[in-house]
Formats: sequence, structure tokens, C-alpha cells
Amino acid sequence: MDFLSIAGLTLALVAILGGSIAKGSGVGALWNPAAFLIVVVGTVAAALLQAQIKVFIHGMQMLPWLFKAPGIDTEAAIEKLVNLSQIARKEGLLGLETLAEQETDPFSSKGLQLLVDGTEAEAIRNILEVDLGVKEQFDLAGAKIFESMGIYAPTLGIIGAVMGLMAVMQNLNDPEKLGPGIAAAFVATIYGIGAANLFFLPVSNKLKTAVHGQTAYREMIIDGITAIAEGENPRNIESKLRGYIL
Amino acid sequence: MDFLSIAGLTLALVAILGGSIAKGSGVGALWNPAAFLIVVVGTVAAALLQAQIKVFIHGMQMLPWLFKAPGIDTEAAIEKLVNLSQIARKEGLLGLETLAEQETDPFSSKGLQLLVDGTEAEAIRNILEVDLGVKEQFDLAGAKIFESMGIYAPTLGIIGAVMGLMAVMQNLNDPEKLGPGIAAAFVATIYGIGAANLFFLPVSNKLKTAVHGQTAYREMIIDGITAIAEGENPRNIESKLRGYIL
Amino acid sequence: MDFLSIAGLTLALVAILGGSIAKGSGVGALWNPAAFLIVVVGTVAAALLQAQIKVFIHGMQMLPWLFKAPGIDTEAAIEKLVNLSQIARKEGLLGLETLAEQETDPFSSKGLQLLVDGTEAEAIRNILEVDLGVKEQFDLAGAKIFESMGIYAPTLGIIGAVMGLMAVMQNLNDPEKLGPGIAAAFVATIYGIGAANLFFLPVSNKLKTAVHGQTAYREMIIDGITAIAEGENPRNIESKLRGYIL
Amino acid sequence: MDFLSIAGLTLALVAILGGSIAKGSGVGALWNPAAFLIVVVGTVAAALLQAQIKVFIHGMQMLPWLFKAPGIDTEAAIEKLVNLSQIARKEGLLGLETLAEQETDPFSSKGLQLLVDGTEAEAIRNILEVDLGVKEQFDLAGAKIFESMGIYAPTLGIIGAVMGLMAVMQNLNDPEKLGPGIAAAFVATIYGIGAANLFFLPVSNKLKTAVHGQTAYREMIIDGITAIAEGENPRNIESKLRGYIL
Amino acid sequence: MDFLSIAGLTLALVAILGGSIAKGSGVGALWNPAAFLIVVVGTVAAALLQAQIKVFIHGMQMLPWLFKAPGIDTEAAIEKLVNLSQIARKEGLLGLETLAEQETDPFSSKGLQLLVDGTEAEAIRNILEVDLGVKEQFDLAGAKIFESMGIYAPTLGIIGAVMGLMAVMQNLNDPEKLGPGIAAAFVATIYGIGAANLFFLPVSNKLKTAVHGQTAYREMIIDGITAIAEGENPRNIESKLRGYIL
Repeated sequence: MDFLSIAGLTLALVAILGGSIAKGSGVGALWNPAAFLIVVVGTVAAALLQAQIKVFIHGMQMLPWLFKAPGIDTEAAIEKLVNLSQIARKEGLLGLETLAEQETDPFSSKGLQLLVDGTEAEAIRNILEVDLGVKEQFDLAGAKIFESMGIYAPTLGIIGAVMGLMAVMQNLNDPEKLGPGIAAAFVATIYGIGAANLFFLPVSNKLKTAVHGQTAYREMIIDGITAIAEGENPRNIESKLRGYIL
Repeated sequence: MDFLSIAGLTLALVAILGGSIAKGSGVGALWNPAAFLIVVVGTVAAALLQAQIKVFIHGMQMLPWLFKAPGIDTEAAIEKLVNLSQIARKEGLLGLETLAEQETDPFSSKGLQLLVDGTEAEAIRNILEVDLGVKEQFDLAGAKIFESMGIYAPTLGIIGAVMGLMAVMQNLNDPEKLGPGIAAAFVATIYGIGAANLFFLPVSNKLKTAVHGQTAYREMIIDGITAIAEGENPRNIESKLRGYIL
Repeated sequence: MDFLSIAGLTLALVAILGGSIAKGSGVGALWNPAAFLIVVVGTVAAALLQAQIKVFIHGMQMLPWLFKAPGIDTEAAIEKLVNLSQIARKEGLLGLETLAEQETDPFSSKGLQLLVDGTEAEAIRNILEVDLGVKEQFDLAGAKIFESMGIYAPTLGIIGAVMGLMAVMQNLNDPEKLGPGIAAAFVATIYGIGAANLFFLPVSNKLKTAVHGQTAYREMIIDGITAIAEGENPRNIESKLRGYIL
Repeated sequence: MDFLSIAGLTLALVAILGGSIAKGSGVGALWNPAAFLIVVVGTVAAALLQAQIKVFIHGMQMLPWLFKAPGIDTEAAIEKLVNLSQIARKEGLLGLETLAEQETDPFSSKGLQLLVDGTEAEAIRNILEVDLGVKEQFDLAGAKIFESMGIYAPTLGIIGAVMGLMAVMQNLNDPEKLGPGIAAAFVATIYGIGAANLFFLPVSNKLKTAVHGQTAYREMIIDGITAIAEGENPRNIESKLRGYIL
Repeated sequence: MDFLSIAGLTLALVAILGGSIAKGSGVGALWNPAAFLIVVVGTVAAALLQAQIKVFIHGMQMLPWLFKAPGIDTEAAIEKLVNLSQIARKEGLLGLETLAEQETDPFSSKGLQLLVDGTEAEAIRNILEVDLGVKEQFDLAGAKIFESMGIYAPTLGIIGAVMGLMAVMQNLNDPEKLGPGIAAAFVATIYGIGAANLFFLPVSNKLKTAVHGQTAYREMIIDGITAIAEGENPRNIESKLRGYIL
């Protein structure tokens, strides 16, 4: 469970709602349906126009990673790979067949299957790196959906504010409405900048970090499997793979 | 058919028109011929000055990709390449001659012709990568036309707003005209920021994604054809190429 | 003749002058000697301080490329290179001697001379790539003079506007002068943003595109000459070089 | 002791507090709890939402580096490595065993152990570069916590200012409160821009420089250890390693 | 003597001082000690906090390069290297010993010494590239001191302006002071943007160009010395090195 994400989202609400109360406008002043329409619908519009449908859906499906990133147990994977290298040394690569079939992670499973088939180390590396690259690109594209929303949102906040000011300007005769009108116009700016900097951009960065973590994990698995294919010494394999742990 | 593009463009209109109505200015306030002249003509002027004519035309011709990207069937291409590798194994590279002549995609056709001619794998890769690179650069240059318009448009929106404010300032004596004048000045900002963030930039990004998809597809074809040239095992070829599918 | 550049510059004038008329300030309001002094002299000052003299002069000498880029005839160069490869096959590299001496383009001439001297392909590539890189860097540095002016100009526009507002603020007592004073202050912004986005940045981008085109052309010549040096098949050479044409 | 950091932080206080006094607002005008809540809590919220917990803690633990970066004695390390190369020449790699066990820096210790075990130079380099890369990425991620806070803080300053202006606008009737209200609204901007440019961004840059220094130091150690593994001449090793000193 | 730097600095003063006179505020309006304190002390504070002391001093010591860059005579260096290659051909590498000892440039001297010692070309390249890289990084870090000041200065200009406006807002009752107060507030903006765009950023760019020039010069020397070590033909060496001259 990623408590930092929960703390971050909570504090973001505290900063915005608490700030508005402390500044003396109260929470109610933050609600403006027209601003909501312009900023939220506009940001979603830009993201939809820009994205491919499968990437957009994937981005949305990555949101739960905020609270629980896909499980990566580097320590366990190293132990398993070192164990595999010892079996391979004793019984040959065919000795890994049962273990390869039991493997549940599709990436490791593909690698072990190639190993058992006697594929050369260089070829295993090439094949797995294509896999890794395609998966990484897809995940990063999902994370970038939020980045792009974080870029579009503030600009739509400006559009909302300008539209609000235009409405005010057309009614300059009524000074009573001037102040509240300008205040209402500004709400769009808060929506745009707030959504970008307290949600979209940090979320995009957290997801990108999770993707890079998975890539590093998979690179370690590639290093381990190719080292086994090259018949390297289990002790050297462990020494190398341990470098992936801080 | 890319429904996301249609949804995005529709929601963009909803956000702008609906927002203007909800804010109380109405749709009519969004129409200003002078602002239109400055922002639209100015943005086009900058793009024309910057672009080469064949790139500019190509960029315009890529617009329909928003609704239907050039067809890429990775699954079918993998099947075809694996099939070719099996034929090559049985009948030799010359056995591919009829298939090479039937190929309609010019890129694959060039690759297969090189294969049939007995060109070495390394040379095939070099030749096809020049092709791929030149095509990719040209397509990306087309997509960047829209990116550059998305960069120029907001700056022209500022010029339009400043010109509008200048006109207002020269008539400060008439307070009746002050409000509507400022409102009219602001319209240019909406044109510039709106065109950039609800059209040019998302469009450029969608086109770039389509170009990268084509490049990945062509890289897969290069990988497949060079693997056949190297006489690799059809099963390994399939295993590698399947990595290009998520 | 690059009609796009002419169209772009013309439309830029239409947008600015026409926009000012349509907004109701008229063309006269756009002329302000103080703003001109700050923005134009300031931008030139920054560019001079930043640049090396030979790069600055080169940048200015590249301006005519806007209307006529240095002639590149890829099609003719491919034919010539394929022809050279056929002669080399029949008569040996020495058979190219007369043609090498007749070559007028200094880059091709240097390459052909190396070929005739019997230099190895790898060495020819290394020598020509140093040449290509140095020329490309110099040309890009020339194009970047305009880019940097496009970055400095808007900031000087802000300085001009602030100075104008300062002058207005010191004479707040005279409300008659307030409006025209603010309007005059804004002119500097138009100069800065307009010069950057309707001239400097598009010009820099057009020049950069021309430079990249020349680099691609020279890379093709390097590919062709080294392929001849390696005694490659004229048909393969043609197949590869044709990839440089879209 | 890094006196520049102390001088920088002191001068930053002088600029802000002294500036506020010299401008005539006094220091008291700089204190505004609502602005503090929005900018500081908001910036922390964004950083928490974005970061992984171990990276966030690591970033905080790197703060003392501002005043004392982790000790790097390149001169001493070169002497030690040259000495090791001489011993290896005379007594063989096993002669380094005692020294390897005495080494306290974990990175050098791992390298020396690999050397004593007779690992090949290429394998040592690969193993140590994984180590170096993982450590560098982790340290840079820690430094980037401050960079991201430096990016979020000014945007939250704008939110704070807008909220403050909204509160003012809702009380336009009371002209007495107008001036102080606007002044109070502006404080959030000073918090945001000041925190970013006088603390977060310079701190992030100083930490990054320290990380790059450590990486260069470790690259030198890798160069030295692999040169010993290759049995290179101590004089050449010294000549190469001395290049790491300016 | 770099007359462009002198012309640039002079024109910058003309633009700022002349502009202020032409706008009607006069030169006196540009002097504001509080703004000076905030912008100049603040910018220096940020740079000090960010920099390492030896880099900061080095950056300051690079300032005279504005007027006279370190002497690079590529033509003479090529002649010397070709001459050395001829001597090496006739008398062997030991024939270069006296010349190596007479060499005054430390970089060339180190290279020639390695040559005379009979070090292999590949090893010479590796050793000299470490040297070149460390020197280049240090020089670039010095140039970036000015770049970072050019980034911090405008943000401190905004802080100064905001502080000035805050002081004005707290005295709204006195309309006499309103105009001059706002004008004084704006001066900080001019300091920040002016210092950045008319000094810091162009200076940083000029210094970076000088550093890249030195790096290119040293790369040419590495190319020349390694070519001599490989016993290459003096004519080929000259042909390659001449490519470094435009």
C-alpha cells in the first residue's frame, strides 16, 4: 500500500480547501460549474483527441498503481535465478524444464522457455529486449496520458478565466457584480493549475517511476537468464545481480 | 475509425461553446473577425515561412489519419514472415520470388526483393533502415507542422489581445465601450490558446504516435526479413516477432 | 524559388497590419521609435554578445536560403554515383580520375579524390564524416543566431512595455495621456512577440531544415563513395541510395 | 564544509527580508499563514504524491550534503590503485587479498574482491557498472525530489495569489481592505517563487553535482580496477587515472 | 580581441538607457536600490547555493574569454601534426622525443609523451579522451554558472516587483504615491529580465561556444596523434585533419 500517495492527495485537499478558508473566501467560492465544464471537459477533450484508444484505456487502468504498484520482488528473483544457474550447471539446461513451465510471470516464462530450448545467449537477449521495449513503451504511453492532461489543464484554466472576465466586462455597468464576477472567473485558473500540479503531473511521474522500476527488474532478469545461457559461474551471476539492489 | 478523435473534437467544442454560455457571455461573444485575422492568418503565416512546401502539403495530407490511421496488421505480417521463413527453409530463398512479386506494400516488397536477390542480411538491414529513416523523418516533419502551429498560435493570441487593448486604451474617454472592448480584446487569447491546446498540439501528438507505430511495424519487418536472410529457425523468428505485440 | 517563404512573410504583414486596422487602432499606432530602439537594438545586442563574429556573418549570409536553398539534386547525384560504380567495376578506381578532377562540389570532389587514391572505405568514411560534421555544426550555428534572437526579442518586448508603463505611471495626474500611454507601452510587446514568432523562429527553423537536407545529401554521397570503395555491386548501391529519395 | 551553501542561504534571506524592508513593506508583511498553508502544504502534497517513499526519505537524507558532500579523495584513490597495480604485477592478483579485505568503501571493496577472484576485466566492468548505475539513479532520484518541489512551488504560489485575490474581490465594497488584501494575496507568489529559486532548485542542482562527482569517482575506480585485471603497466594506469584530476 | 562582445554590451546599454529616455522616464527612474538588492543579491545567493566553490571561481575566471577566447590555431596545429607524422615515418616514434619535450600545451604534451613511450593508438585515445572530457565538463560547468544566473534573475525580478506592489497596496490612500510606487516596483522586472537576456544568457552561450571550440581542437589533436601512432600516411592524416577547418 502506497501511503505516500494517500498522504499526498489528502494534503492537496487540505492545501486547496484549507487555503480557501484561511484566505477568507470559504470553500463554496471554489465551486463554479462553468469553470468545471471548460477545464475538465476541455482537458479530457484534448487528451482524447491526442490518444489512441488502447493507450487511453491502459492509462486509466494504471491509476490503481498509485496505491499499489505491480509487485516486484528483486530479492526473490535473484535467489531464483541463482538457483536456476546452479541447477543448469549440474543437470544442464534441460534440467530447468519443469521450473520453466511452472513460472507464472509471462516475461520470465518466455525467457526460461528460450533457455530450455537451447537458444543462444545473444538471441535470448535480443528477443527479450524487444519484448521489454514494447511493454515499456506502452506503459510509458499510458503514464504520459496524465502528463499531457497536466499540460493542457492550466491552458484551459486560462481560457476559463478569460471567458469569465469577458462576461464581467460585458456587464461593467453593474459594479455590484464586478467583484464576484472576477472572483468566479479566477476559479478556472485554480482548477487548471491545481489539477495539473496536485494531480496529473505527480500522478504521471509516480506511474513513470513504477514503469522504470519494472524495466530495471526485467533487465535484471535478462542479465540473469543470458548469464545462465552462457554457462557463467553462479557466484558471478549472484554478484552481478546483487548490484541491482541498492 | 478513430472514435476518440471525434469524441475529442466534439468535447472541445462543448467545452468552449458551452463554457462561454455557462459563463454568461454567450456564443456570439466568441466571434471576432479581427482576432480571427490576427491569430489564424498569423499562425498560418509563421507555418508557411517555416515549412518546405512538400512537407507542408504532406502535413495537410496526414490530417485524415486523425480518423483512420494507415492500416497496420502486425499479426498478419508476423504470420506472413513466419510462413516465408518456412518456405525459405524448404525451397531456398528463390522459393520466395513469386511472393515477393505479389507483395503490395512497397517497403516489404523492397525487402523481399533484396532477400530473393540473395543480398546479405547486414546489407538488407542497412538498405531498409535508410528507407525507414527517410520515410519516418518526412512523416514526423509533417506532424511537426501542427506542433509548430500549436506553438505560434498562443503567441499570436497575445498579439491580438494586446492590439485589442491598445484600441481600447485610445478610447478611454468613452466608458461605455471600455468593457466590451476589453472583452473583444480577450477573444484573441481564446482563439490562440484554444486552437493550440484543443487542436494543433493534440493533433500533432496523435499523428506522431501513428508515425511511431508505422516505424515499429517496419522495424519488425526488417527484423523478420534479416532473420530469414540469416536462415534462422522459423520458431525463433516467430518468438522474436511476437514480442512486437503487447 | 521558395514561394512559401514569400507567402509567409506577406501573410505575416497582413495579420499584423490588417489586425491593427480591424481592431480599430490603425497602422499608425504600431509605430513607436522608443519601442523599436529597445526591442530591435536590445535583441541585436544580445545576439552580438553571444555570437562569434564568423558565425554571425555566416548566419546573415544564410538569409537568402529563405528564398532559394542551396541546390541539392539527389536524383542526379545517385545517377552519377551509380555510373561511377560501374566505371570502377570495369576500369578500376583509377578509371575515376578524370571524373574526380571535373567534380565541382568540393565535398564530392574530396571524396572522389580519396577514392582514386585507393584509400580504404573505412578511412574515407571517417575523413568525410569529420568534414560533414564540421560544416553541419557551422551552418546550424548560423541558423541558431535567428533562434536566439527569437528567444531574446519577446523578453525585450516585456522590458519595453514595462518602461512604457513606468513612464505612464509617473504621469498619472494627467488622465488624458493615460490611455495613449498604455497603448504606446504595449507596442513593444507586439514588436518582440511578432518579430520572434513571425520572423526569427520560423526563419531559424527553415534554415535548420535546409541544413539537415544538405547533411542527408552528403551522408548519401558518403554511403555511395564508400560502397564504391568496397567494390559493391552497382545494383545494390542504387537500391540503397534510392532509399534516400522518398 | 561548504561555505558557499551557507553564504547562499544567508544572502537569500538578506535579499528577501532586506528587500521587503527597503521596499517599505517591512518584514511583517511577508508573513501570511494562509499563503504558507497553500504553498508549503501544496508543494509537499505534490512531492509526496509523486515520490516513492524510499526515494523521498533518501532525498531528505541527502540534505546535509549541502554543507558537506560525501568525501571523495581522487588523489588518494589514484595512489592506492597504482600501488595495487604494482603489487599485482609483482605478486599476482592474489597478493591483493589482504588489501581487498581491508577496503572500507563498499564499491571499491566489491571491485577488489572480483579482482582477487580472478574475474575477467570485462566481467568486472559489467558488474561494477550495474552497481554504479543503480546507485547513481537512486541518488539522482533523491536530488530530483527538490527539483520537482521547485517546479510545483511557483504554481502553488499562483493558486495562493488567485485565492487571495478572490477573497479581495468578494469584498470590493470596503475600499479600506482592498490594498492590504491585494498585498496579502501577493505574498503567496513570493513564497512560491522564492522557495523554488532560492532553495529548491539550487539545492537540487548542488545535490546533482555531488552525485555526478561520485559517479566520476567510481568510473575512475572501475577504470583502475579493470586496468589492473588486464595486467596493464602501472605507469599507463597512472597516466590514465591522472586525467580524472583537472 | 572580440569586438562583437564589446559592441553587444554597448548596444545593450544603448537599448536600456536610450529606451528609458525615449519612453520619457529618464535614466534616473532606472535606479532603485531595493530592486537592486533583491535581484542582484538574490541571483548571487541562488548561484552560490547551487555551485561548488571551485566551479564558481572558474566561471568568474572565464569572463575575460568574452573579450579574448583562449588562442586556438588549428592551422598551425595541423602543420605541426603532419610534420610530426613525417618525422615519425623517417626516424620512428623516438624521433619525436625532443619535440614532445618542447611542447608547451599540456594536453598536446601528454599526448606526444604517450606517443614517444610507444603506447598503442587505442590506449592513447582512451587516456586523452578522459582528459578532454574532464576538462570540458569543468569548463562547461563554469559557463553554466552564468546560465543559471540568467534563469534565476528574472524570477527574482518578479519577486522584487511583487514586493514593490505590496508596498504600494499598503498605501493606497495616498494617490500621489500610487504612480511612482508602481513605476518603482516595475524596475525590478527590468533588472531581472535585462540582466538575464542582455548579459547572463548571452555570456553563458559565448563561453559555451568557446569551450566547444577547444573540445573540437583537442579532438583533432587526438585524431592526429592516434593516426601517427597507427603509422598512417602523412598525406591521409593531413586530408583528415583539414576537414576540421571549414
